[in-house]
Amino acid sequence: MFSPLLERLVRSLQVLPGVGPKSAQRMAFHLLQKNREGGRSLAETLADAVAKVGLCQSCRTLAETALCRLCANAKRDDRLLCVVESPADIVAIEQAGGYSGRYFVLHGRLSPIDGIGPEELGLAQLAANVRERQPEEVILATNPTVEGEATAFYISDLIKDDVGNISRIAHGVPVGGELEYVDGGTIVHALQGRRRLR
Amino acid sequence: MFSPLLERLVRSLQVLPGVGPKSAQRMAFHLLQKNREGGRSLAETLADAVAKVGLCQSCRTLAETALCRLCANAKRDDRLLCVVESPADIVAIEQAGGYSGRYFVLHGRLSPIDGIGPEELGLAQLAANVRERQPEEVILATNPTVEGEATAFYISDLIKDDVGNISRIAHGVPVGGELEYVDGGTIVHALQGRRRLR
Repeated sequence: MFSPLLERLVRSLQVLPGVGPKSAQRMAFHLLQKNREGGRSLAETLADAVAKVGLCQSCRTLAETALCRLCANAKRDDRLLCVVESPADIVAIEQAGGYSGRYFVLHGRLSPIDGIGPEELGLAQLAANVRERQPEEVILATNPTVEGEATAFYISDLIKDDVGNISRIAHGVPVGGELEYVDGGTIVHALQGRRRLR
Repeated sequence: MFSPLLERLVRSLQVLPGVGPKSAQRMAFHLLQKNREGGRSLAETLADAVAKVGLCQSCRTLAETALCRLCANAKRDDRLLCVVESPADIVAIEQAGGYSGRYFVLHGRLSPIDGIGPEELGLAQLAANVRERQPEEVILATNPTVEGEATAFYISDLIKDDVGNISRIAHGVPVGGELEYVDGGTIVHALQGRRRLR
Protein backbone atom coordinates (compact mmCIF):
# COMPACT_ATOMS: atom_id res chain seq x y z
CA MET A 1 0.00 0.00 0.00
CA PHE A 2 2.83 2.38 0.89
CA SER A 3 5.99 2.91 -1.09
CA PRO A 4 8.93 0.97 0.43
CA LEU A 5 10.51 4.10 1.94
CA LEU A 6 7.20 5.27 3.39
CA GLU A 7 6.66 1.81 4.85
CA ARG A 8 10.10 1.95 6.47
CA LEU A 9 9.30 5.38 7.91
CA VAL A 10 6.00 4.17 9.37
CA ARG A 11 7.81 1.21 10.92
CA SER A 12 10.65 3.37 12.26
CA LEU A 13 8.27 5.82 13.93
CA GLN A 14 6.92 2.97 16.03
CA VAL A 15 10.11 2.95 18.12
CA LEU A 16 8.55 5.97 19.84
CA PRO A 17 6.73 5.03 23.06
CA GLY A 18 2.95 5.05 22.71
CA VAL A 19 3.06 5.13 18.90
CA GLY A 20 1.34 2.26 17.07
CA PRO A 21 0.89 1.63 13.33
CA LYS A 22 -2.03 4.03 12.98
CA SER A 23 -0.44 7.05 14.66
CA ALA A 24 2.88 6.29 12.95
CA GLN A 25 1.08 6.50 9.60
CA ARG A 26 -0.54 9.78 10.61
CA MET A 27 2.84 11.16 11.69
CA ALA A 28 4.55 10.09 8.46
CA PHE A 29 1.85 11.66 6.26
CA HIS A 30 1.80 14.81 8.37
CA LEU A 31 5.57 15.32 8.09
CA LEU A 32 5.70 14.57 4.36
CA GLN A 33 2.60 16.51 3.40
CA LYS A 34 2.67 19.45 5.74
CA ASN A 35 5.95 19.91 7.53
CA ARG A 36 9.02 18.68 5.67
CA GLU A 37 11.15 21.38 7.25
CA GLY A 38 10.16 20.15 10.71
CA GLY A 39 10.81 16.56 9.67
CA ARG A 40 14.25 17.42 8.33
CA SER A 41 15.15 19.26 11.51
CA LEU A 42 13.83 16.43 13.70
CA ALA A 43 15.95 13.91 11.76
CA GLU A 44 19.06 16.05 12.20
CA THR A 45 18.53 16.78 15.89
CA LEU A 46 17.73 13.15 16.64
CA ALA A 47 20.86 11.89 14.85
CA ASP A 48 22.87 14.50 16.72
CA ALA A 49 21.40 13.63 20.11
CA VAL A 50 21.77 9.88 19.67
CA ALA A 51 25.42 10.37 18.72
CA LYS A 52 26.42 12.96 21.33
CA VAL A 53 24.25 12.72 24.44
CA GLY A 54 25.89 10.60 27.13
CA LEU A 55 25.85 10.57 30.90
CA CYS A 56 27.05 13.41 33.13
CA GLN A 57 30.31 12.23 34.75
CA SER A 58 29.13 13.33 38.15
CA CYS A 59 25.38 12.68 38.45
CA ARG A 60 24.76 10.35 35.47
CA THR A 61 21.89 12.37 34.03
CA LEU A 62 21.68 12.69 30.24
CA ALA A 63 23.98 15.42 28.91
CA GLU A 64 26.18 16.04 25.88
CA THR A 65 28.86 17.71 28.02
CA ALA A 66 31.13 16.05 30.60
CA LEU A 67 29.23 17.78 33.39
CA CYS A 68 25.51 18.54 33.15
CA ARG A 69 24.16 22.05 33.76
CA LEU A 70 23.14 21.33 37.34
CA CYS A 71 26.46 19.74 38.29
CA ALA A 72 28.34 22.61 36.63
CA ASN A 73 26.27 25.15 38.58
CA ALA A 74 28.35 26.26 41.59
CA LYS A 75 25.30 27.79 43.26
CA ARG A 76 23.60 24.47 43.96
CA ASP A 77 23.63 23.28 47.56
CA ASP A 78 26.36 20.68 48.05
CA ARG A 79 24.93 19.63 51.40
CA LEU A 80 21.97 17.83 49.81
CA LEU A 81 22.13 14.88 47.42
CA CYS A 82 18.92 13.49 45.94
CA VAL A 83 18.98 10.01 44.36
CA VAL A 84 16.39 9.46 41.60
CA GLU A 85 15.55 6.65 39.19
CA SER A 86 15.54 8.65 35.97
CA PRO A 87 16.41 12.01 34.41
CA ALA A 88 12.66 12.66 34.06
CA ASP A 89 12.46 12.69 37.86
CA ILE A 90 14.99 15.55 37.98
CA VAL A 91 12.80 17.50 35.56
CA ALA A 92 9.75 16.91 37.77
CA ILE A 93 11.57 17.96 40.97
CA GLU A 94 13.13 21.03 39.36
CA GLN A 95 9.78 22.12 37.91
CA ALA A 96 8.17 21.75 41.34
CA GLY A 97 10.82 24.09 42.76
CA GLY A 98 11.94 24.14 46.38
CA TYR A 99 14.99 21.90 45.99
CA SER A 100 18.41 23.32 45.21
CA GLY A 101 20.74 20.46 46.06
CA ARG A 102 22.59 17.92 43.91
CA TYR A 103 21.28 14.82 42.14
CA PHE A 104 22.32 11.30 41.27
CA VAL A 105 20.52 9.29 38.58
CA LEU A 106 20.30 5.49 38.85
CA HIS A 107 18.73 4.89 35.41
CA GLY A 108 16.50 2.18 36.83
CA ARG A 109 16.04 0.29 40.07
CA LEU A 110 17.35 -2.99 41.42
CA SER A 111 15.60 -5.79 39.58
CA PRO A 112 17.43 -9.13 39.64
CA ILE A 113 14.84 -10.65 37.26
CA ASP A 114 15.77 -8.11 34.58
CA GLY A 115 19.46 -8.46 35.36
CA ILE A 116 19.69 -5.00 36.90
CA GLY A 117 22.07 -5.03 39.85
CA PRO A 118 24.19 -2.46 41.73
CA GLU A 119 26.60 -2.20 38.81
CA GLU A 120 23.94 -1.17 36.27
CA LEU A 121 22.75 1.56 38.64
CA GLY A 122 26.23 3.00 39.18
CA LEU A 123 26.04 2.45 42.93
CA ALA A 124 29.84 2.27 43.30
CA GLN A 125 30.01 5.73 41.77
CA LEU A 126 27.25 6.95 44.08
CA ALA A 127 29.15 5.64 47.13
CA ALA A 128 32.35 7.27 45.90
CA ASN A 129 30.52 10.58 45.34
CA VAL A 130 29.14 10.45 48.88
CA ARG A 131 32.56 9.68 50.43
CA GLU A 132 34.29 12.35 48.44
CA ARG A 133 31.79 15.22 48.71
CA GLN A 134 30.41 14.50 52.15
CA PRO A 135 26.84 15.78 51.77
CA GLU A 136 25.00 16.33 55.03
CA GLU A 137 21.94 14.47 53.81
CA VAL A 138 21.15 11.95 51.09
CA ILE A 139 17.49 11.92 50.01
CA LEU A 140 16.35 8.66 48.45
CA ALA A 141 13.65 9.58 45.92
CA THR A 142 13.16 6.22 44.17
CA ASN A 143 9.54 5.36 43.40
CA PRO A 144 7.31 3.71 46.01
CA THR A 145 7.23 0.36 44.21
CA VAL A 146 8.57 -2.86 45.69
CA GLU A 147 11.73 -2.52 43.63
CA GLY A 148 12.06 1.18 44.35
CA GLU A 149 11.81 0.52 48.09
CA ALA A 150 14.35 -2.31 47.85
CA THR A 151 16.70 -0.02 45.96
CA ALA A 152 16.35 2.72 48.59
CA PHE A 153 17.02 0.18 51.35
CA TYR A 154 20.08 -1.19 49.54
CA ILE A 155 21.53 2.29 49.00
CA SER A 156 20.90 3.38 52.56
CA ASP A 157 22.78 0.28 53.73
CA LEU A 158 25.60 0.97 51.27
CA ILE A 159 26.29 4.56 52.36
CA LYS A 160 25.22 4.49 56.00
CA ASP A 161 28.77 4.88 57.35
CA ASP A 162 29.62 7.84 55.14
CA VAL A 163 26.73 10.22 55.68
CA GLY A 164 24.93 11.45 58.78
CA ASN A 165 21.38 11.71 57.42
CA ILE A 166 19.66 9.44 54.97
CA SER A 167 16.02 10.19 54.23
CA ARG A 168 13.25 8.85 52.05
CA ILE A 169 10.71 11.13 50.32
CA ALA A 170 7.23 11.03 51.84
CA HIS A 171 4.59 8.87 50.21
CA GLY A 172 0.94 9.60 50.93
CA VAL A 173 -2.22 11.18 49.65
CA PRO A 174 -1.33 13.59 46.80
CA VAL A 175 -2.11 17.27 47.38
CA GLY A 176 -5.56 17.91 45.93
CA GLY A 177 -6.31 14.18 46.02
CA GLU A 178 -9.16 12.67 47.99
CA LEU A 179 -8.75 9.82 50.43
CA GLU A 180 -11.77 8.11 48.93
CA TYR A 181 -10.11 7.66 45.56
CA VAL A 182 -6.60 6.80 46.69
CA ASP A 183 -5.34 3.20 46.43
CA GLY A 184 -4.73 1.07 49.51
CA GLY A 185 -0.93 1.09 49.29
CA THR A 186 -0.89 4.87 49.32
CA ILE A 187 -3.22 4.98 52.35
CA VAL A 188 -0.95 2.57 54.25
CA HIS A 189 1.99 4.86 53.45
CA ALA A 190 0.01 7.94 54.44
CA LEU A 191 -0.90 6.42 57.82
CA GLN A 192 2.61 5.13 58.53
CA GLY A 193 4.09 8.50 57.61
CA ARG A 194 1.66 10.51 59.78
CA ARG A 195 3.06 13.53 61.61
CA ARG A 196 2.05 14.83 65.00
CA LEU A 197 0.32 18.18 64.85
CA ARG A 198 0.51 19.12 68.54
CA MET B 1 16.68 21.66 33.17
CA PHE B 2 17.71 19.77 30.06
CA SER B 3 21.02 20.01 28.29
CA PRO B 4 20.78 22.28 25.19
CA LEU B 5 20.79 19.36 22.77
CA LEU B 6 18.17 17.48 24.76
CA GLU B 7 16.04 20.61 24.87
CA ARG B 8 16.31 20.93 21.08
CA LEU B 9 15.32 17.28 20.69
CA VAL B 10 12.26 17.72 22.93
CA ARG B 11 11.26 20.78 20.90
CA SER B 12 11.85 19.03 17.56
CA LEU B 13 9.72 16.03 18.53
CA GLN B 14 6.76 18.36 18.94
CA VAL B 15 6.47 18.72 15.15
CA LEU B 16 4.79 15.31 15.32
CA PRO B 17 0.99 15.56 15.37
CA GLY B 18 -0.51 14.90 18.80
CA VAL B 19 2.83 15.25 20.60
CA GLY B 20 3.06 17.94 23.28
CA PRO B 21 5.96 18.88 25.60
CA LYS B 22 5.28 16.04 28.03
CA SER B 23 5.16 13.19 25.52
CA ALA B 24 8.07 14.71 23.59
CA GLN B 25 10.12 14.52 26.79
CA ARG B 26 9.08 10.93 27.34
CA MET B 27 10.00 10.06 23.75
CA ALA B 28 13.41 11.75 24.00
CA PHE B 29 14.28 9.97 27.25
CA HIS B 30 13.02 6.65 25.92
CA LEU B 31 15.15 6.86 22.77
CA LEU B 32 18.29 8.00 24.59
CA GLN B 33 17.98 5.64 27.53
CA LYS B 34 16.52 2.53 25.99
CA ASN B 35 16.63 2.49 22.22
CA ARG B 36 19.48 4.44 20.65
CA GLU B 37 19.63 2.02 17.74
CA GLY B 38 15.96 2.67 17.00
CA GLY B 39 16.53 6.41 17.35
CA ARG B 40 19.46 6.34 14.96
CA SER B 41 17.49 4.36 12.41
CA LEU B 42 14.46 6.66 12.76
CA ALA B 43 16.70 9.70 12.17
CA GLU B 44 18.18 8.13 9.05
CA THR B 45 14.89 6.94 7.58
CA LEU B 46 13.21 10.26 8.28
CA ALA B 47 16.01 12.24 6.61
CA ASP B 48 15.83 9.87 3.67
CA ALA B 49 12.05 10.10 3.34
CA VAL B 50 11.94 13.89 3.63
CA ALA B 51 14.59 14.15 0.91
CA LYS B 52 13.28 11.53 -1.50
CA VAL B 53 9.53 11.05 -1.18
CA GLY B 54 7.62 13.15 -3.70
CA LEU B 55 4.34 12.78 -5.56
CA CYS B 56 3.54 10.00 -8.01
CA GLN B 57 3.49 11.57 -11.49
CA SER B 58 0.22 9.92 -12.32
CA CYS B 59 -1.96 9.86 -9.18
CA ARG B 60 -0.11 12.34 -6.91
CA THR B 61 0.09 9.99 -3.93
CA LEU B 62 3.30 10.02 -1.88
CA ALA B 63 6.05 7.91 -3.48
CA GLU B 64 9.82 8.01 -3.91
CA THR B 65 9.55 6.64 -7.46
CA ALA B 66 8.14 8.41 -10.53
CA LEU B 67 5.14 6.09 -10.48
CA CYS B 68 3.69 4.69 -7.24
CA ARG B 69 3.13 0.96 -6.75
CA LEU B 70 -0.54 1.12 -7.61
CA CYS B 71 -0.04 3.16 -10.77
CA ALA B 72 2.78 0.85 -11.86
CA ASN B 73 0.58 -2.20 -11.32
CA ALA B 74 -0.80 -3.20 -14.76
CA LYS B 75 -3.43 -5.43 -13.12
CA ARG B 76 -5.44 -2.55 -11.66
CA ASP B 77 -8.74 -1.77 -13.36
CA ASP B 78 -8.30 1.23 -15.69
CA ARG B 79 -12.05 1.66 -16.03
CA LEU B 80 -12.44 3.04 -12.52
CA LEU B 81 -10.83 6.20 -11.14
CA CYS B 82 -11.36 7.14 -7.50
CA VAL B 83 -10.60 10.72 -6.39
CA VAL B 84 -9.58 11.07 -2.72
CA GLU B 85 -8.42 13.91 -0.50
CA SER B 86 -5.30 12.30 0.93
CA PRO B 87 -2.93 9.31 0.62
CA ALA B 88 -4.32 8.04 3.94
CA ASP B 89 -7.69 7.60 2.19
CA ILE B 90 -6.05 5.24 -0.32
CA VAL B 91 -4.69 3.18 2.56
CA ALA B 92 -8.16 2.99 4.11
CA ILE B 93 -9.84 1.96 0.85
CA GLU B 94 -7.16 -0.61 0.00
CA GLN B 95 -7.34 -2.10 3.49
CA ALA B 96 -11.11 -2.40 3.18
CA GLY B 97 -10.63 -4.38 -0.04
CA GLY B 98 -13.19 -4.59 -2.84
CA TYR B 99 -11.79 -1.80 -5.02
CA SER B 100 -9.23 -2.48 -7.70
CA GLY B 101 -9.35 0.65 -9.85
CA ARG B 102 -7.07 3.68 -10.10
CA TYR B 103 -6.74 6.65 -7.75
CA PHE B 104 -6.10 10.36 -7.85
CA VAL B 105 -5.03 12.29 -4.72
CA LEU B 106 -6.04 15.93 -4.29
CA HIS B 107 -3.96 16.60 -1.15
CA GLY B 108 -6.74 18.71 0.33
CA ARG B 109 -10.07 20.13 -0.71
CA LEU B 110 -11.18 23.43 -2.18
CA SER B 111 -10.96 26.05 0.54
CA PRO B 112 -10.72 29.63 -0.71
CA ILE B 113 -10.21 30.91 2.86
CA ASP B 114 -7.01 28.87 3.15
CA GLY B 115 -5.95 29.80 -0.39
CA ILE B 116 -6.56 26.29 -1.70
CA GLY B 117 -7.95 26.44 -5.23
CA PRO B 118 -8.06 24.10 -8.24
CA GLU B 119 -4.36 24.60 -8.87
CA GLU B 120 -3.26 23.36 -5.42
CA LEU B 121 -5.39 20.24 -5.88
CA GLY B 122 -3.92 19.39 -9.29
CA LEU B 123 -7.33 19.51 -10.95
CA ALA B 124 -5.86 20.35 -14.38
CA GLN B 125 -3.83 17.13 -14.13
CA LEU B 126 -6.93 15.21 -13.04
CA ALA B 127 -8.88 16.52 -16.04
CA ALA B 128 -5.99 15.63 -18.38
CA ASN B 129 -5.79 12.11 -16.86
CA VAL B 130 -9.51 11.63 -17.46
CA ARG B 131 -9.35 12.85 -21.06
CA GLU B 132 -6.32 10.75 -21.84
CA ARG B 133 -7.25 7.47 -20.12
CA GLN B 134 -10.99 7.57 -20.59
CA PRO B 135 -12.16 5.70 -17.47
CA GLU B 136 -15.74 4.51 -17.56
CA GLU B 137 -16.49 5.90 -14.15
CA VAL B 138 -14.99 8.51 -11.84
CA ILE B 139 -15.83 8.00 -8.16
CA LEU B 140 -15.61 11.14 -6.06
CA ALA B 141 -14.59 10.03 -2.55
CA THR B 142 -13.92 13.39 -0.92
CA ASN B 143 -15.15 13.67 2.66
CA PRO B 144 -18.77 14.61 3.44
CA THR B 145 -17.86 18.06 4.77
CA VAL B 146 -19.07 21.30 3.21
CA GLU B 147 -15.72 21.76 1.50
CA GLY B 148 -15.50 18.11 0.45
CA GLU B 149 -18.96 18.32 -1.14
CA ALA B 150 -18.05 21.56 -2.91
CA THR B 151 -14.87 19.94 -4.21
CA ALA B 152 -16.81 16.92 -5.50
CA PHE B 153 -19.30 19.24 -7.21
CA TYR B 154 -16.53 21.33 -8.79
CA ILE B 155 -14.73 18.25 -10.12
CA SER B 156 -17.90 16.69 -11.49
CA ASP B 157 -18.56 19.94 -13.38
CA LEU B 158 -14.96 20.02 -14.63
CA ILE B 159 -14.93 16.52 -16.13
CA LYS B 160 -18.59 16.03 -17.04
CA ASP B 161 -17.96 16.15 -20.82
CA ASP B 162 -15.12 13.63 -20.72
CA VAL B 163 -16.55 10.72 -18.75
CA GLY B 164 -19.85 8.88 -18.89
CA ASN B 165 -20.35 8.12 -15.21
CA ILE B 166 -19.49 10.29 -12.26
CA SER B 167 -20.47 8.98 -8.83
CA ARG B 168 -20.18 10.03 -5.23
CA ILE B 169 -19.50 7.52 -2.41
CA ALA B 170 -22.50 6.86 -0.17
CA HIS B 171 -22.78 8.66 3.15
CA GLY B 172 -25.02 7.22 5.82
CA VAL B 173 -25.18 5.24 9.02
CA PRO B 174 -21.87 3.35 9.47
CA VAL B 175 -22.08 -0.45 9.45
CA GLY B 176 -22.44 -1.55 13.07
CA GLY B 177 -23.53 1.96 14.06
CA GLU B 178 -26.86 2.73 15.68
CA LEU B 179 -29.24 5.35 14.38
CA GLU B 180 -29.74 6.62 17.90
CA TYR B 181 -26.12 7.71 18.24
CA VAL B 182 -25.54 9.04 14.74
CA ASP B 183 -25.35 12.82 14.14
CA GLY B 184 -28.07 14.71 12.29
CA GLY B 185 -26.04 15.39 9.15
CA THR B 186 -25.39 11.69 8.70
CA ILE B 187 -29.08 10.86 9.18
CA VAL B 188 -30.04 13.43 6.51
CA HIS B 189 -27.53 11.78 4.14
CA ALA B 190 -28.81 8.31 5.05
CA LEU B 191 -32.40 9.30 4.27
CA GLN B 192 -31.54 11.12 1.06
CA GLY B 193 -29.46 8.16 -0.11
CA ARG B 194 -32.15 5.57 0.69
CA ARG B 195 -32.50 2.68 -1.75
CA ARG B 196 -35.67 0.90 -2.75
CA LEU B 197 -35.80 -2.70 -1.55
CA ARG B 198 -38.71 -3.94 -3.70
